[in-house]
Amino acid sequence: MNNIGVYGLGVMGQSLARNIMQHGFSVSVYNIETEITKQFTQKYPKLFGYESLEAFVNSLEKPRKIILIVTAGRVVDSVIASLKPLLAKGDILIDCGNSYYEDTQRRMQSLQQDGFYLIGSGVSGGEKGALHGPSIMPSGEYRAYCEIADIFTAIAAKNEDGTACCTYIGKEGSGHFVKMVHNGIEYADMQLLAELYAILKRLYPKDRAAVQKAFHQLNQHNLASYLLDITEDILQKKEQEEWLLDKVLDVAKQKGTGKWTACVSLEYGVPVPSLIEAVEARFLSSMKAQRLQAEQCYAGTQDEETSNEQLAADLCKAVLLAKTSIYAQGFSLIAAVNAQCGYHIDTKQLAVIWQNGCIIKSEFLKDIYQAYDKDANLTNLLVSDQFTEYVKQGREDLQRIISFALQKGLYIPVLCSAMNYVNGYTTASLETNLIQAQRDCFGAHTYERVDQAGVFHSDWLK
Amino acid sequence: MNNIGVYGLGVMGQSLARNIMQHGFSVSVYNIETEITKQFTQKYPKLFGYESLEAFVNSLEKPRKIILIVTAGRVVDSVIASLKPLLAKGDILIDCGNSYYEDTQRRMQSLQQDGFYLIGSGVSGGEKGALHGPSIMPSGEYRAYCEIADIFTAIAAKNEDGTACCTYIGKEGSGHFVKMVHNGIEYADMQLLAELYAILKRLYPKDRAAVQKAFHQLNQHNLASYLLDITEDILQKKEQEEWLLDKVLDVAKQKGTGKWTACVSLEYGVPVPSLIEAVEARFLSSMKAQRLQAEQCYAGTQDEETSNEQLAADLCKAVLLAKTSIYAQGFSLIAAVNAQCGYHIDTKQLAVIWQNGCIIKSEFLKDIYQAYDKDANLTNLLVSDQFTEYVKQGREDLQRIISFALQKGLYIPVLCSAMNYVNGYTTASLETNLIQAQRDCFGAHTYERVDQAGVFHSDWLK
Repeated sequence: MNNIGVYGLGVMGQSLARNIMQHGFSVSVYNIETEITKQFTQKYPKLFGYESLEAFVNSLEKPRKIILIVTAGRVVDSVIASLKPLLAKGDILIDCGNSYYEDTQRRMQSLQQDGFYLIGSGVSGGEKGALHGPSIMPSGEYRAYCEIADIFTAIAAKNEDGTACCTYIGKEGSGHFVKMVHNGIEYADMQLLAELYAILKRLYPKDRAAVQKAFHQLNQHNLASYLLDITEDILQKKEQEEWLLDKVLDVAKQKGTGKWTACVSLEYGVPVPSLIEAVEARFLSSMKAQRLQAEQCYAGTQDEETSNEQLAADLCKAVLLAKTSIYAQGFSLIAAVNAQCGYHIDTKQLAVIWQNGCIIKSEFLKDIYQAYDKDANLTNLLVSDQFTEYVKQGREDLQRIISFALQKGLYIPVLCSAMNYVNGYTTASLETNLIQAQRDCFGAHTYERVDQAGVFHSDWLK
Repeated sequence: MNNIGVYGLGVMGQSLARNIMQHGFSVSVYNIETEITKQFTQKYPKLFGYESLEAFVNSLEKPRKIILIVTAGRVVDSVIASLKPLLAKGDILIDCGNSYYEDTQRRMQSLQQDGFYLIGSGVSGGEKGALHGPSIMPSGEYRAYCEIADIFTAIAAKNEDGTACCTYIGKEGSGHFVKMVHNGIEYADMQLLAELYAILKRLYPKDRAAVQKAFHQLNQHNLASYLLDITEDILQKKEQEEWLLDKVLDVAKQKGTGKWTACVSLEYGVPVPSLIEAVEARFLSSMKAQRLQAEQCYAGTQDEETSNEQLAADLCKAVLLAKTSIYAQGFSLIAAVNAQCGYHIDTKQLAVIWQNGCIIKSEFLKDIYQAYDKDANLTNLLVSDQFTEYVKQGREDLQRIISFALQKGLYIPVLCSAMNYVNGYTTASLETNLIQAQRDCFGAHTYERVDQAGVFHSDWLK
């Protein structure tokens, strides 16, 4: 009898199966297209492939542990439906796809009524992460998690101190929820790098080596990250003596998790402007034909490219501020939903398991760990010492960089929204009192006062 | 037999009923709390009040026309359910509340199956608009609209040339849809004014008269608007020798239409960053306790207030650019949903009926009318001559104002996102190619190329 099954042999499924096998566990694999299973097990004969679903399920020790790694959405429901008649009470399904967390919640409840368990598990790291060690975010019934903890801990990425990038996240769909926010942050991190690239191209016109060097200098200390690693690689990649990146169309696609994060933040009333702007940026990038037409109308109105060494030197501190703002936003969304849904997420542990294996892997997450280690109930990263320091030190630099970039006509929505979030969050009295006065004026929506309690309405036109 | 009935005697219902009565129509009124009906009809004895729903319905000439003006959501469903048994085939309900447009669509279909009509009608203008002439946005079955066209045209606001601010919008829930986007634009317009107020307070420290004068100068020509009118009034309102606005708490509330607009834009993949930032700004404004705490951590890091006459002079052109961007975003959302849902909305007519009666009433809408009059299939306002001119003329001024405001630590998300939307939309080649290269690198998501058709994948790490 094998230790665990993997249902779904796409890129991620194959990598996960091989990763588990390499850690000494026996793995049954299944794919709806039998041919794929055959080819895969021919290549990796230590894996056990099955053509029938029944044989696949029966090959597993009880309680059965079956990883589902299939396309999110209806496919997950139909796979679960096809498996259910074959399962025994206490068997555990583990959804490692990018399911929407409320779908996971619904499926958990439904399966539990029949005596089965569902673990909803976010997995980040792409193909390579899945193979060599991803960051894993499982949630659901704790005792069901305990049955898979050994395997998941073994295959996860490891931090420098040996801790695994896998921890029990919390109740219900919290694993897929935090994976969703992870991706929302990832969108913002990626758009931030695109904006820095735009700025560096203007700072070092036609000097690719200087742009490469600037990214390399950014990729140090607290800012060292996986996304900067691959950015460095991408900037060096050539195809027949030409930079391959220059051949890539500027249409940035998406698979939905960033958009979900945006919608959930709106639903819960938690501002995450930089995460949303990053989603908007991908929408705008898709409007290629419109942008081509529009540029015609504005030809010749943009500044010439000019070098500016001082600004390049300012970049590090400015980026630290922007990252601080992005992560403050993302973590505040997690805190709000965690509190409202009673997930019991230990935020500090997120900063542990995201330090390696996942797409937002970075040294910066160590700072976040420190902040939550000092104060487990931290309201917002912006009021934690280290981040307050980053903001104070980076403020002027980021302002200068934004001014420069806008003067060049650049599109820098994440840099601007990151700065504005900090400005808004750290201002005790905003001018939004004017908005509330307007609302009271045209709609009698009433207002509160700074000098006394209660609800008031005035005739503003007299 | 009376011409029309009004169900729901809240502030808006009472004003609408009086408005219709004043135009010579006989109006039956009903409220679930009989006492309210009694008080209201005692005050306005020309209105016909009824205590029983049956008597109310039976007092109307056929086909009956009943305006529902009740709280959006479940209340609408239950009111419809209570009315249905009393209606005859061909009777027409008109939902004048702020219903979600997809709810309206669903209710229309359900009522039509029983032989009744539902007109979903956005109404803007607040209490005063409803009484003296609102902007009205009815949609649904055209022949049902024809039955109420006379009354609605009579009570609507009128433009200078006498045209009524009421037009048949289009099929299904399109009336409530455009009202929703109207409100999304309204949120952005209001936040824009709050940001200008923040800037003017720094430009003219402790000189309220100068701030008032600056707003008055803004409120001219194409920028003249209802929201600037009431802003001028609000800035002049005193309470015991003190400015009342200074007593208003800076928590700006919302009733949901801005959030809906944000969610719909995400669903359809249409960037409306300034509309979303305005919603985020209200969220942030609500986090009063957190902002108070956060400001403590950053005490003394903000610039001193300083006057700057030149910047104040730049304001008009900068605001014209910001408005151009906001309306380009809002109208592009309408265009996208209109195309996908087949509503047959005549965009030019929106620019007619929003010129008066509604909250976003402004001279600026005449420019929008001109743009769609020239080209009914305009993709985006940004590529229309007049608006291209506004952008070109305002670019440098807005850049300078943003630089100044960020240097002062101000929260100016709508000004920034308005600028960034213009920059992004008018750039043929964005640096989002880096994002797609990253996606291909870590997730094998493939990319398109600028030099050849097809879909490509590369190993970026070699």
